Amino acid sequence: MSHSLQLLLLLAIIIAAAKLAGAAANRVGQPAVFGEILAGLLLGPTLLNLLGWSIFTAAVPSSGVAPAAPLGAIVSDLAEVGVILLMFIAGMETDLAQMRRVGKVAFWAAAGGVVLPLIAGALTATAFGLPLFWQGIFIGTILTATSVSISAQTLMEIGALRSKEGSVILGAAVIDDVMGIVLLSVVVAFARGSGRPDVAGLVLIVFRIAVFFAVAVFCGRYLPALVRAADRLGVSQGLLGLVLVVTFLYAWGAEYIGEMAAITGSYVAGVLFARTPRKERIDQGIHPLTYSLFVPIFFVSIGLRANARELGADIWFALALVSVAIVTKAVGCAALAAVGGFTRREAVRVGVGMISRGEVGLIVASYGLAHGVIGGNVFSASVVMVLVTTMITPPLLRLVFPPRHARHAPIVEETVGGPPEEEHGRRR
Amino acid sequence: MSHSLQLLLLLAIIIAAAKLAGAAANRVGQPAVFGEILAGLLLGPTLLNLLGWSIFTAAVPSSGVAPAAPLGAIVSDLAEVGVILLMFIAGMETDLAQMRRVGKVAFWAAAGGVVLPLIAGALTATAFGLPLFWQGIFIGTILTATSVSISAQTLMEIGALRSKEGSVILGAAVIDDVMGIVLLSVVVAFARGSGRPDVAGLVLIVFRIAVFFAVAVFCGRYLPALVRAADRLGVSQGLLGLVLVVTFLYAWGAEYIGEMAAITGSYVAGVLFARTPRKERIDQGIHPLTYSLFVPIFFVSIGLRANARELGADIWFALALVSVAIVTKAVGCAALAAVGGFTRREAVRVGVGMISRGEVGLIVASYGLAHGVIGGNVFSASVVMVLVTTMITPPLLRLVFPPRHARHAPIVEETVGGPPEEEHGRRR
Repeated sequence: MSHSLQLLLLLAIIIAAAKLAGAAANRVGQPAVFGEILAGLLLGPTLLNLLGWSIFTAAVPSSGVAPAAPLGAIVSDLAEVGVILLMFIAGMETDLAQMRRVGKVAFWAAAGGVVLPLIAGALTATAFGLPLFWQGIFIGTILTATSVSISAQTLMEIGALRSKEGSVILGAAVIDDVMGIVLLSVVVAFARGSGRPDVAGLVLIVFRIAVFFAVAVFCGRYLPALVRAADRLGVSQGLLGLVLVVTFLYAWGAEYIGEMAAITGSYVAGVLFARTPRKERIDQGIHPLTYSLFVPIFFVSIGLRANARELGADIWFALALVSVAIVTKAVGCAALAAVGGFTRREAVRVGVGMISRGEVGLIVASYGLAHGVIGGNVFSASVVMVLVTTMITPPLLRLVFPPRHARHAPIVEETVGGPPEEEHGRRR
Repeated sequence: MSHSLQLLLLLAIIIAAAKLAGAAANRVGQPAVFGEILAGLLLGPTLLNLLGWSIFTAAVPSSGVAPAAPLGAIVSDLAEVGVILLMFIAGMETDLAQMRRVGKVAFWAAAGGVVLPLIAGALTATAFGLPLFWQGIFIGTILTATSVSISAQTLMEIGALRSKEGSVILGAAVIDDVMGIVLLSVVVAFARGSGRPDVAGLVLIVFRIAVFFAVAVFCGRYLPALVRAADRLGVSQGLLGLVLVVTFLYAWGAEYIGEMAAITGSYVAGVLFARTPRKERIDQGIHPLTYSLFVPIFFVSIGLRANARELGADIWFALALVSVAIVTKAVGCAALAAVGGFTRREAVRVGVGMISRGEVGLIVASYGLAHGVIGGNVFSASVVMVLVTTMITPPLLRLVFPPRHARHAPIVEETVGGPPEEEHGRRR
């Protein structure tokens, strides 16, 4: 089978599996995202090993013009676009006024979610015989990374993204990203053995973060004019084309200029586009694109990349890391959210929403692996940690948020034309 | 720069270039698709060599988990998805009743577009000193390949897809695909030197084509039920997810089961989905997906892959091939369309619409290259032939179709929610 035929078949299988598993998850009262990640796990090397099937391994270049890429790499790239679009939509859905009101709580929650996992992660590592300096501290740093794409999707599904708690979770995730990159830079500077704090390097990083946000907000002022110009272009989907171009550039800039995660950039782009005069039209165009193809691939690919069989000897370390990651993030965020003024129930919701690590944890871990700070076993344990925290966040969020949220859900649902059918918009 | 950052930047550049060039083409009275292909040529190795820029060549794996694919391969894959979605939309737009009425003309046009280019191509090859058996005949076979994706897009832009002539062009393209694969199989069987006609092999191919169409139409009966079931799934974009799964499977099946082009399969899927009860909702979802991202990438990638500089010594052969390809396809199709009952003006429109060869010509040529029937120089000349026929089709179609068609155009335009702005839907 030629490469392009393999790709078509693979995409068909992934999308079908994601949608069916999402529907099944809904039926048992879980968010669809939970089912989609689970579908990926079942299709992945842990069980079915889809990408290892002989029909998907022996690739022939389709046209003889360009060499074919490995299918796994294509799926990864599509998934990357998926999470960027997902966070763009989370940005579009963000209630900025609400977020301003709870900004202080978000800052505290983010701080709590950095400090406690850092300390506890480092201590856990030493308990397993790893040196505190700098391997232990680096492991703590891995645990501080937050990636709220999964939480954002779950909150959208249960209609709680614009709630007080939802706003704190999204706001804290951005703040956490800034704190995380500063922390990572400090730790890496020390761990590389220069021995002295690289003040100049640190100032540079803070400067780069500031530059990104300054440029992002400055360019944001021109978005309304750009949006109108794109509409006047007279080409098909000119407006949506502009949205993609700006979103991709913001995602690129967040990582390239600001050294933060690309999803932080696309989230900021979403927040800015939400304030333009074409918000509704953008919404109606970006949802089909995102949820029919890219986001299902993103969720399934999380499971596709994981291999639970590779754990072996380090299982206890991995289990310890997972437990510490879950408990300290939730407790740290919740405790300081309560200090910031939230009730205990609200604080718990925030803590739970911050548990998932997603690809940011993987990026930090692979950075450490590439720079020789941690070994392959710690990296594998980190992968397990990321996977487990990702898997449990949707059901836990479902649990701690009141059922009433589930009713007025589907902002994200069925923006594809026509009056939504009655059974269609509903979530269980 | 990490691989995923390179990809984001590249996609942003490609989409922006495509949309701006499309708008510029509109402004000078050309179809947008012409501008988009031209943008690709300028970005390609012929002039700017975008993919060769140092920021896009030195790739670092993003997450350390999977090896990164070359950017060119990713773009090719996205382009492949793009042309498949494009032909799905052409299928959705097809007026089946109209096509039935003109079916006879379509058959004649297809036959004329196979016979004349085959003979003329073979004779041209012998004029340049190539042996008639089998290299000359194979070159003729390359010239018979039609790919109407570019014509379909142009016809949609000028609002003529559902006209008599548009229906004949689309219908003839499907028939041509069937004739082409039978012809290719016969020629390859002879050229490989078995010396005798492989009757069993030929019967097998006709059988496989019949099986594909039978299965496709049989499954098509269940699409209305499937469409309703997808709506009841309650997952976001379940309906559009189903459309993508079925379209990808049909495209896969057309090539894998029927040995035809994948775009023939997605075209058939579009025709079948157009008859389901959710046609309008599907339309409104598939357009943003297709025209914001995948189709711009497809058009730009045509130019990106071409390199006009590589022509060199074989330029006269290439020029001869191009001229013969254009003239014989147009004359052959038009002459027999006239025999089938079309007026001279209508017949000319059909002939012009069949000129573009697209990727089907490339597939045939690379097949010959891979099996040693033709050499690298003939392959390069074929690439030029495909490129030139692709480039000239939109302006020529614009020329031969009456301007009135240009008014009631935008079925394809702005299905993204909201009442289309006045200046938005218009085409010049």
